[in-house]
Amino acid sequence: MAGLPLDPRRAGRLVVLGGAGRVAETGQGLGGEVWLVGAGPGDPDLITVKALKLLQAADVVVHDRLTPKAVLDLAGPKARLIDVGKRKARHTLPQDDINKLLIALAREGLTVVRLKGGDPFVFGRGGEELQACRAAGVACHVVPGVSAALAAGASAGAPLTHRGLAQAVTFVTGHAAKGGEPDLDWASLAKANQTLVIYMGLSTAAVIATRLAQAGRQPSTPVLVVEKASLPEERRVLTSLSALAADVAGLEGPAILIVGEVAALAETDTVIEAAAARRFA
Amino acid sequence: MAGLPLDPRRAGRLVVLGGAGRVAETGQGLGGEVWLVGAGPGDPDLITVKALKLLQAADVVVHDRLTPKAVLDLAGPKARLIDVGKRKARHTLPQDDINKLLIALAREGLTVVRLKGGDPFVFGRGGEELQACRAAGVACHVVPGVSAALAAGASAGAPLTHRGLAQAVTFVTGHAAKGGEPDLDWASLAKANQTLVIYMGLSTAAVIATRLAQAGRQPSTPVLVVEKASLPEERRVLTSLSALAADVAGLEGPAILIVGEVAALAETDTVIEAAAARRFA
Repeated sequence: MAGLPLDPRRAGRLVVLGGAGRVAETGQGLGGEVWLVGAGPGDPDLITVKALKLLQAADVVVHDRLTPKAVLDLAGPKARLIDVGKRKARHTLPQDDINKLLIALAREGLTVVRLKGGDPFVFGRGGEELQACRAAGVACHVVPGVSAALAAGASAGAPLTHRGLAQAVTFVTGHAAKGGEPDLDWASLAKANQTLVIYMGLSTAAVIATRLAQAGRQPSTPVLVVEKASLPEERRVLTSLSALAADVAGLEGPAILIVGEVAALAETDTVIEAAAARRFA
Repeated sequence: MAGLPLDPRRAGRLVVLGGAGRVAETGQGLGGEVWLVGAGPGDPDLITVKALKLLQAADVVVHDRLTPKAVLDLAGPKARLIDVGKRKARHTLPQDDINKLLIALAREGLTVVRLKGGDPFVFGRGGEELQACRAAGVACHVVPGVSAALAAGASAGAPLTHRGLAQAVTFVTGHAAKGGEPDLDWASLAKANQTLVIYMGLSTAAVIATRLAQAGRQPSTPVLVVEKASLPEERRVLTSLSALAADVAGLEGPAILIVGEVAALAETDTVIEAAAARRFA
């Protein structure tokens, strides 16, 4: 591209152009840039080494309400922590305001770490923050993380893909506008021989189960629900599509729903323990 | 469960029953157990802190041919490295033999780290190794990792989900029996408003593109190909479904194919650089 010499040292890095084609790259370590960093599922040992290094180098860490304290404690002593999930009487800062905040901080010359639960690009709205930085000519880098679904499967011993049971895995969000239901392609999602992972599906679990069954998924299809995957208070419930709504009634979330035959491979004793603990709590 | 006291210290850990219901859990740090550990996409900074700790504590590290040296170098000095991808004149050790090896090593009382590229449960056959350990009464724990697709998206700046463009992301493998084609549900995968990620799809890229187009995906749909995501030699090509087969001809893999509108958000300059480098190499 004109004006951009081929520089092998740039391989794997993002180069951001300003509105007029100005190269706004500032270079790592020089400040004035935004790092969208996957914080992983919650266990501080499940962040990447790169995320740890960035937390320790950051001038500012912008995080959400659900980021565990144990993860924030990894930030270096100089880092200012900004919680964008608790502003204005417990209302989350609107996405547009978060974008503006990241850009403003970077323009102060700061190294800004924007921590995102799980992976920034899997239901993390990281794409919107990256686009905003690009449009503003602010250098922005993305560091992947362990998405919650991967942690849920690992913790329970339920593989997301498995020979003979699931040759594909689909991630969707169960989030819906207030009072509505998720806008999903139920016919595709109800197909057999695949795993369906639902993020943020606890509050819409009943309608999800109904729609999948109506679209042809067997009501006996196993469903593994993992709440707070990887955290000390993790709870797991192994149920079925037909019993899902009743069996998640006691959970608070955040939770991952794993729908499909692989769910039945989950570690049964632990699951029973979790369910029993919930029932007798 | 009978014989298994509720022990909060066991939360989030796998408890494995032997064939006769014998509790075979040996406890962390006591040896005689298998850890299925996600090694991440290749960049040693993209392994988790937990993976790093386990590599340093391992007696044996069982890895594949493609595990980068920089990742293996993280293992502690006492660790024996076993490459199960290079036995018998460059033939990979059959899965069943790998299972037996893991079990035999654990039964020697060793702490065995089985390194899997990316995440153990996303096309990693980790489920098969876990099941074999369970059946043998060998304690087995799973540590999730950054799957290659997440690294590819992060590196290129292409979110896998994005408001208005992709409300779901599906992971499949392009692997096919020799001379055959991937056994996939093309009608579901060809639907709009979702991202399709194909692992190991380089050699079957032509038939994948044809089938998706036949099933209704627009031939102009953008496709981002990321080869060796997160490694220094990473290369990216931004193409379309109709040009995919021609444009990946020079790549060796392993590569991730990201099909869908989000691919067009990939960092264009870097992509053009990569394509140019390939073209003029």
